[in-house]
Amino acid sequence: MRGRLRKRDEIRNIARAVLDTYGKLDPKLQHIEPTPLPDKGSIFAIVEDLLEVVYPGYYGAKHLEPSNIEYHIGDLLDSIYSRLSQEIYRSVRPECERPDDPCNHCHEVAEDQTLALLTRIPDLRRQLSEDVQAGYDGDPAAKSTDEIIFAYPAIYTISVFRIAHELNRNGVPLLPRIMTEYAHSKTGIDIHPGAKIGRAFFIDHGTGVVIGETTIIGDRVKIYQGVTIGALSFSKDAEGQIVRGEKRHPTIENDVVIYSGATILGGDTVIGEGAVVGGNVWLTRSVPPHTRVVISEPELVIGRK
Amino acid sequence: MRGRLRKRDEIRNIARAVLDTYGKLDPKLQHIEPTPLPDKGSIFAIVEDLLEVVYPGYYGAKHLEPSNIEYHIGDLLDSIYSRLSQEIYRSVRPECERPDDPCNHCHEVAEDQTLALLTRIPDLRRQLSEDVQAGYDGDPAAKSTDEIIFAYPAIYTISVFRIAHELNRNGVPLLPRIMTEYAHSKTGIDIHPGAKIGRAFFIDHGTGVVIGETTIIGDRVKIYQGVTIGALSFSKDAEGQIVRGEKRHPTIENDVVIYSGATILGGDTVIGEGAVVGGNVWLTRSVPPHTRVVISEPELVIGRK
Amino acid sequence: MRGRLRKRDEIRNIARAVLDTYGKLDPKLQHIEPTPLPDKGSIFAIVEDLLEVVYPGYYGAKHLEPSNIEYHIGDLLDSIYSRLSQEIYRSVRPECERPDDPCNHCHEVAEDQTLALLTRIPDLRRQLSEDVQAGYDGDPAAKSTDEIIFAYPAIYTISVFRIAHELNRNGVPLLPRIMTEYAHSKTGIDIHPGAKIGRAFFIDHGTGVVIGETTIIGDRVKIYQGVTIGALSFSKDAEGQIVRGEKRHPTIENDVVIYSGATILGGDTVIGEGAVVGGNVWLTRSVPPHTRVVISEPELVIGRK
Amino acid sequence: MRGRLRKRDEIRNIARAVLDTYGKLDPKLQHIEPTPLPDKGSIFAIVEDLLEVVYPGYYGAKHLEPSNIEYHIGDLLDSIYSRLSQEIYRSVRPECERPDDPCNHCHEVAEDQTLALLTRIPDLRRQLSEDVQAGYDGDPAAKSTDEIIFAYPAIYTISVFRIAHELNRNGVPLLPRIMTEYAHSKTGIDIHPGAKIGRAFFIDHGTGVVIGETTIIGDRVKIYQGVTIGALSFSKDAEGQIVRGEKRHPTIENDVVIYSGATILGGDTVIGEGAVVGGNVWLTRSVPPHTRVVISEPELVIGRK
Amino acid sequence: MRGRLRKRDEIRNIARAVLDTYGKLDPKLQHIEPTPLPDKGSIFAIVEDLLEVVYPGYYGAKHLEPSNIEYHIGDLLDSIYSRLSQEIYRSVRPECERPDDPCNHCHEVAEDQTLALLTRIPDLRRQLSEDVQAGYDGDPAAKSTDEIIFAYPAIYTISVFRIAHELNRNGVPLLPRIMTEYAHSKTGIDIHPGAKIGRAFFIDHGTGVVIGETTIIGDRVKIYQGVTIGALSFSKDAEGQIVRGEKRHPTIENDVVIYSGATILGGDTVIGEGAVVGGNVWLTRSVPPHTRVVISEPELVIGRK
Amino acid sequence: MRGRLRKRDEIRNIARAVLDTYGKLDPKLQHIEPTPLPDKGSIFAIVEDLLEVVYPGYYGAKHLEPSNIEYHIGDLLDSIYSRLSQEIYRSVRPECERPDDPCNHCHEVAEDQTLALLTRIPDLRRQLSEDVQAGYDGDPAAKSTDEIIFAYPAIYTISVFRIAHELNRNGVPLLPRIMTEYAHSKTGIDIHPGAKIGRAFFIDHGTGVVIGETTIIGDRVKIYQGVTIGALSFSKDAEGQIVRGEKRHPTIENDVVIYSGATILGGDTVIGEGAVVGGNVWLTRSVPPHTRVVISEPELVIGRK
Repeated sequence: MRGRLRKRDEIRNIARAVLDTYGKLDPKLQHIEPTPLPDKGSIFAIVEDLLEVVYPGYYGAKHLEPSNIEYHIGDLLDSIYSRLSQEIYRSVRPECERPDDPCNHCHEVAEDQTLALLTRIPDLRRQLSEDVQAGYDGDPAAKSTDEIIFAYPAIYTISVFRIAHELNRNGVPLLPRIMTEYAHSKTGIDIHPGAKIGRAFFIDHGTGVVIGETTIIGDRVKIYQGVTIGALSFSKDAEGQIVRGEKRHPTIENDVVIYSGATILGGDTVIGEGAVVGGNVWLTRSVPPHTRVVISEPELVIGRK
Repeated sequence: MRGRLRKRDEIRNIARAVLDTYGKLDPKLQHIEPTPLPDKGSIFAIVEDLLEVVYPGYYGAKHLEPSNIEYHIGDLLDSIYSRLSQEIYRSVRPECERPDDPCNHCHEVAEDQTLALLTRIPDLRRQLSEDVQAGYDGDPAAKSTDEIIFAYPAIYTISVFRIAHELNRNGVPLLPRIMTEYAHSKTGIDIHPGAKIGRAFFIDHGTGVVIGETTIIGDRVKIYQGVTIGALSFSKDAEGQIVRGEKRHPTIENDVVIYSGATILGGDTVIGEGAVVGGNVWLTRSVPPHTRVVISEPELVIGRK
Repeated sequence: MRGRLRKRDEIRNIARAVLDTYGKLDPKLQHIEPTPLPDKGSIFAIVEDLLEVVYPGYYGAKHLEPSNIEYHIGDLLDSIYSRLSQEIYRSVRPECERPDDPCNHCHEVAEDQTLALLTRIPDLRRQLSEDVQAGYDGDPAAKSTDEIIFAYPAIYTISVFRIAHELNRNGVPLLPRIMTEYAHSKTGIDIHPGAKIGRAFFIDHGTGVVIGETTIIGDRVKIYQGVTIGALSFSKDAEGQIVRGEKRHPTIENDVVIYSGATILGGDTVIGEGAVVGGNVWLTRSVPPHTRVVISEPELVIGRK
Repeated sequence: MRGRLRKRDEIRNIARAVLDTYGKLDPKLQHIEPTPLPDKGSIFAIVEDLLEVVYPGYYGAKHLEPSNIEYHIGDLLDSIYSRLSQEIYRSVRPECERPDDPCNHCHEVAEDQTLALLTRIPDLRRQLSEDVQAGYDGDPAAKSTDEIIFAYPAIYTISVFRIAHELNRNGVPLLPRIMTEYAHSKTGIDIHPGAKIGRAFFIDHGTGVVIGETTIIGDRVKIYQGVTIGALSFSKDAEGQIVRGEKRHPTIENDVVIYSGATILGGDTVIGEGAVVGGNVWLTRSVPPHTRVVISEPELVIGRK
Repeated sequence: MRGRLRKRDEIRNIARAVLDTYGKLDPKLQHIEPTPLPDKGSIFAIVEDLLEVVYPGYYGAKHLEPSNIEYHIGDLLDSIYSRLSQEIYRSVRPECERPDDPCNHCHEVAEDQTLALLTRIPDLRRQLSEDVQAGYDGDPAAKSTDEIIFAYPAIYTISVFRIAHELNRNGVPLLPRIMTEYAHSKTGIDIHPGAKIGRAFFIDHGTGVVIGETTIIGDRVKIYQGVTIGALSFSKDAEGQIVRGEKRHPTIENDVVIYSGATILGGDTVIGEGAVVGGNVWLTRSVPPHTRVVISEPELVIGRK
Repeated sequence: MRGRLRKRDEIRNIARAVLDTYGKLDPKLQHIEPTPLPDKGSIFAIVEDLLEVVYPGYYGAKHLEPSNIEYHIGDLLDSIYSRLSQEIYRSVRPECERPDDPCNHCHEVAEDQTLALLTRIPDLRRQLSEDVQAGYDGDPAAKSTDEIIFAYPAIYTISVFRIAHELNRNGVPLLPRIMTEYAHSKTGIDIHPGAKIGRAFFIDHGTGVVIGETTIIGDRVKIYQGVTIGALSFSKDAEGQIVRGEKRHPTIENDVVIYSGATILGGDTVIGEGAVVGGNVWLTRSVPPHTRVVISEPELVIGRK
């Protein structure tokens, strides 16, 4: 008892030691200021609510009928508007140098950005409808488009990506990456919100897929699990700092198929229209249209164990 | 202020534009009807509760003793019965053409299917006990079977797979895939509920493993992370639609070991009893029993950076 | 109605059948005893709270200011102390042979272990600050260290690993693995808490990375998605049981870079200081310092589809 | 330890003893049947949601604006419709003798009753607006009508009463009483849903007020805490059973004021228009219009303590 | 901003000033010690769960059927056992002088007391069944015994009282009063857990009823709202301290009816069998059996307003 | 089915009809504006948290020890500061005519008012310590001061009153009344936050007590259940509007005792120091110090039933 109490007393010393490190590190690993950073839990909830707007009846409320759909979706959009504009405010505020708090300019930006995203939902639905159809057409294991929407990690990830991409395109910091990492965490598919991806895109299985920031993907492209579309190397500037923002990732043209485990690297690498990249291929150069690239099958050594 | 209000007013226009797309797309991406679709959140909770029945004291309630175990498990099974039969009803209802609502026939089916699954739990426990032992025997990093049950993603995934497989075998739509994708999301191991998997199965680490719908796996098979057991190509019918339901995935016989990153493809591919498939091997043809298949080690180029 | 009731009655028979399997299997798959096992949900919450102490303002409460930070962190540490010492108690109690219940000795151990971990937080913060900087320096896609902390699965996993490693080093059973598997589940990065990892460590993308129990990694090492640092084979003892605890995994010296998909195996394998291991390389032998190892690029067969 | 376990084992005996009493008592104190009774928690939530429809911005969601009010209220009404018709179903089902389960007739009734109530909301708002004004006009302590709505137990109780009265008038069993008792529990004001109450009704303070089932109250009546409007005695039938449904409570005409602690009893008692009933008066006979009834002030004995 | 921050800084001074008062007052208004006091929220939840055991299907879970009732009630009793014995431990621990922590003796006491209460449930159900019947027989407004159980504050209060009385009879401190005050808070009926109350007890409406600690009430007694059965005066000891534990409250014999607002005071006051006490009567002396006591109706002054 | 759908369609018409009444009534019963009104649920939570600061270890967190008390209370005060200043902002904003939104002036006011309240907590604790002692000294049923704090509705109400009184004294609108009505709802004791109440105040049982806005109560006053300290009549101004703010309620001097059911009315009524007011007394005139006022006991008519 005695001893046990004395142990708990140690917490005061520990707390002091921890507090001593606040403000002393670089990077600081802390944000102890009146204007808070975005809240990940809130962003995740917003993403799920946006998915309900996109896929009503699959995500969220289960009793949607023609008589209530307008009310429900309207109420949901209004709620998303409030919460998303708050999170965007928290994302842009630290980058703004205006002294006021709260910063009216940042509120303006946040509300405009929110509307810009919401306005894109009808278009996103059209794109995602094509993605779902591509999934159904491309996987013999799929029994219905219901199954695609409910159970395909690719569709989940692409949906979140297309939402995050809109925010990224408009220059909202932090949020787009938090969103795509949320999807990455759930599906193992890592698409940077900066990537440009065309219509009717499909990924089968998907775990381990990486699609880098400056990737460009055309229409009707299909890729399998474990595919990397990545950077080959990074430029560094005169001071040895890596250069950010350059095109470092490949271009994949229309109707390309890339099988599992393939790795395609480099900002100048172009996979031509209709090409097929075989499994486990490691590519750092371009491939002409309508060609098939496979590893010359490595010799297998088969013998008694 | 003024402006800010006017911005929020935009939501009405956005809502109308979104609503305009409901019912106009194909696939529709919506289910706005009196009979709702299955609820993913509810299915996930059912899975966790089933895992508590299978592994009492590891999942769920923490104070199980001989005096209360019967009450607790009985109450839990009863609750699972109610909820699971509702979700199965929601899964089968859209496929049923009877006009009544609610559909008594579908209720009958849902309840029978639920009982059919629950009746299998004792057998599932026996199978999973062997799987846990296989994990302990196969991994020197494991300190105890407690650790296997608590912390091995393979055991989690195989447990959910074995439950989902029962439903799939009995023809329940949607639910089995939602269940295995739930496990896939948590572990990165993607096993289709249609696969047939024998006794004492073990997967180490597991991220990136894919086991396709028509795979057959024997007893005492052990595989490592990143292994794909997949389809080679799909048949298409006269109209260019892919044919669903054919055997497209390999057969893995008893006592096979498949090392990390190996890819085995094709419905006619058979890995014979006791064979060992080396890491990163890419196989589209069969391997005789008791053989070892490895890549002829690719020449490494070693030089100064 | 009638029939439906009779169906529900079946649950009694099912419950009896399930209960009949409790205590009859080996491994038992059950823990039905007065002293409960650790609670995974509670451990996950403790991990998130520890991350808030490490990264205040990023995780957890959003309104931290200089005026309240001491109170908030102090209160949080005190709460962590209570909960973590309970979970450690539950971890060590089953291994203790003392007959008392509750076991005072185990309480002592649990409290000491908890303090030992909390005392390490200032140091962990210093290490993690270097890891975050390494992430920023190593990825041109990163726009800020905020983004690294918020959205990089590597940082999440390394943070949890460094916490779990402390507990593992002190011999706490079960908990360290439950913690790293929690991170593995979220990020697809599987680092065993037994691994020894140096300063300024970074993993890009990360899905599929496996770092085994007896791995040793130096300072400023950077690895990419899909890299395995694993065991080559296991020793078995005279009775055919695998030997646990031996060094089975490679040593990676300072300043090594390992590209995506590479596999490095074996307890005697040493990747020398400053070496670069190319993508998809499969290595079971050592590499000298300051060398680059790449696959002799496999011949690609490029032809019309 | 030993002993402690044996104690817990006692619970099995206790459970059996408790179960033995199920079905053996009269009244049974149990409802163990496939069709459940109404759920009090759900009814309470419905009441709070109805109050939000009646007083938007005071109850429930805090960010109502002209742009979202229609969506929010529409969505709320739809949700109330689903839940309230379920609770009404559960209320009427046990009284229905049709053998089917679910009973379509009861569903019809429940839905019709729900619509009948919701249709009355505009009128209820008009009535309650007058009640709020009466409160403001009648209490010098009230600073605003906001305060009346937020903090006057009378308004809360009258609002719930007026809702419950509609259901009671239409013959819905159980629910109206559960609703008014919910308000009674919160405010100490006990108004039977069968009472008929006119316009601009106000109760000040209110604790201890009782208004019986067959009371009739006119317009602009004001009463104070502790007032009982009750029954004098009950008729019994030939078998000694009390007769239910007779008018047993007084009639209070327009513009009457009844001060605190007054008791007015009997079905034939009429308090005439404009009368004033003084505090603590005990009345079992009628009072003519425009009269004031006070106790001849009891002699006070004032002396040294 | 500046200013606003400085304001928040004030909280540190306030916290210090508040902390300065901890330990300096008498009574202290604080309990800052390793062994916590009982938790009111937990006790309230236990009460609700006990009511579910007593009234299955009215309180708590809504889908009780013959097939699951045993499991559900058994599981609930087991859970109540754990939680209630913890709260009793917290109640008795501060009164125990043994130095150990935890105190095994107090655990023994707590578990015995818990079992003692649970063992009484079958009997409590029999008593409460008679109370419910008394309610139905005594109130013409009641349409069914369902309504009595669901909506009569008297039944709620008497149920909680009968539970608390058992604990009080066995000498458990604090808990019984916390329980009856929980009911008092919900119903306005204040029954001290020390009172002795016979069979078939009924209270109509009930707000304002007070029944003191040493009251004795016989069988088939019926009382109305606002009735006080209280103490007349308190004995003080030589030091001027009030004497606790004496019989200070009246005895009410079988078949007595007490109408609303009556006040009966004094430990020697006996209301004889079958007596009727009229409304507003103020009694400090005994009343013979089978008599009716009413106020000589005070003269009413009726005049124009 | 058909019909059932058509029924649900009715909700659209109902929604329109309800919306039509928004903005058309007077009082409006609505607050549909960008600046929301205070949130009752939030205020209730703040009250409970303030009670934890006042009575640490009785309310709120159960594991307070000397080592953590400072952190816990500091963190709690900081959280109360944020939330309470928001609710005060919402209370004062509608009364402020400044056009900005948000209104910096109102934020200043809200923060100042919050600090003003928190600064008073040490003093409030001293006052409440005397109130608790008065309860213990005044009720022979009380076994300990723990019981007083845990289970006496008077202490709960007086605590909330003393908090609300501070806010009321400083002119905060709405909140004080919402707070005291929260306590009124739980205890049946209705104390207006405007009343002035001295030291060592006690109310026994308490249901039905009313203490009006302009009441003045001295030190060591003790009152019983059902006591009203109220207004006799209201002044009206030339336009027939009641005059607000006048002294309308009695003055109760030091050491007065008022027994149950007594009613004391009128702004000029003074109950002199040390006086005793007997049960059920109805007083509209002053009473000299050190006197006892009782009803000349009404003649009781005792006869056979």
